[in-house]
Amino acid sequence: MSESRSAHTAPRVAVVLSGCGVYDGAEIHESVLTLLALDRAGAQAQCFAPDRPQHHVINHLTGAEQTDAPRNALVESARIARGKILPLADYRAADFDAIVFPGGFGAAKNLSSFAFDGVDCTVEADVERAIRETHAAGKPIGALCISPVLLAKVLGDGISLTIGSDAGAAGAVTAMGADHRITGHGEVIVDPVRRVATTPCYMLDATLSQIDDGARAVIRAVLELIER
Amino acid sequence: MSESRSAHTAPRVAVVLSGCGVYDGAEIHESVLTLLALDRAGAQAQCFAPDRPQHHVINHLTGAEQTDAPRNALVESARIARGKILPLADYRAADFDAIVFPGGFGAAKNLSSFAFDGVDCTVEADVERAIRETHAAGKPIGALCISPVLLAKVLGDGISLTIGSDAGAAGAVTAMGADHRITGHGEVIVDPVRRVATTPCYMLDATLSQIDDGARAVIRAVLELIER
Repeated sequence: MSESRSAHTAPRVAVVLSGCGVYDGAEIHESVLTLLALDRAGAQAQCFAPDRPQHHVINHLTGAEQTDAPRNALVESARIARGKILPLADYRAADFDAIVFPGGFGAAKNLSSFAFDGVDCTVEADVERAIRETHAAGKPIGALCISPVLLAKVLGDGISLTIGSDAGAAGAVTAMGADHRITGHGEVIVDPVRRVATTPCYMLDATLSQIDDGARAVIRAVLELIER
Repeated sequence: MSESRSAHTAPRVAVVLSGCGVYDGAEIHESVLTLLALDRAGAQAQCFAPDRPQHHVINHLTGAEQTDAPRNALVESARIARGKILPLADYRAADFDAIVFPGGFGAAKNLSSFAFDGVDCTVEADVERAIRETHAAGKPIGALCISPVLLAKVLGDGISLTIGSDAGAAGAVTAMGADHRITGHGEVIVDPVRRVATTPCYMLDATLSQIDDGARAVIRAVLELIER
């Protein structure tokens, strides 16, 4: 049980978005189903996103880059959060019981440079601070889809996690020092020492029901890590 | 049972989006949870949206209008559909067993002019055609949130439906000739003659679990109407 809440208080969980749309932001299905799983479990969710320009804008119909106008990751993430969202710079681990990162290319383009730099990627400063601060407070961290690369890069050595079964991505997190485990839909890898829970979601071909299974499973695991 | 499928074929359901975000497009939670309910029920969903400019773009963080670049309803809806979406002009009732309209201001700004013109609104041409063609084929239509106004305007006289408990909106659909029923979360009004099922969702203050309840209930009702 975290010091910051009593047994009868709803757990407070921060959800970090990275835009709005799989190819340049947060994956919408993973984000909504993470928020639904938290609500179903009686947790209070608060969305955050970095207040910075997206790396780029992708036309989700054609796959081409749109160059007419840049978009801001916080402003676009607000679409998923119906306006109830805060800049990630305002996140304080002391105010929350856990933090969760849904996936989408935004995690690899806006929250880090993994999509471009792979093993040598950098992690956005507020994201790195949020992960380090939460980890230092002994509070759990959940990550879906490609977002576990953020945890591999920041927490590194020997952390157990999954990004599904893709050999290239698995090789990258292994090179960052992580202990990668191959998983299927709805499976969660829990690192009980580092208090990290991860699940593959759209890193695998998936139906929406399988994304829901994964989101519920990883949220259940995160909430159980709070209880310990 | 619709003529177009056997008892052992998954029902095919068209889902009509209107952009990506509650204030200028399709409400994201309602859209995703409609698609999830269809997948959980074993139905095959195909997303559609009109290939036309959105009425405007709203910054979902501030609520202000953004005038830097127009957005297209089909292109933005493709974010929710992960690119698997067709122009609504391509919809043919013969290819589907039912059609469903999630809510969001996009239904009242892009699929119709209800947000601006109320009772005197016009309905976008492809939307009107899709509703008339589906109705004429005796196939069911589902609508969430504010989208039942589309059905009231097009199908009009005596249609039973709900848009929750808002007196202004209820008065408008009543003036269009509908028989409005007040409802709470997860409740569905079924008009068995016109084969229409509606539920209020975010027309009421709602948690995400309540939106999920409403989406599942209206999809269950739509699929039952197919079976009859």
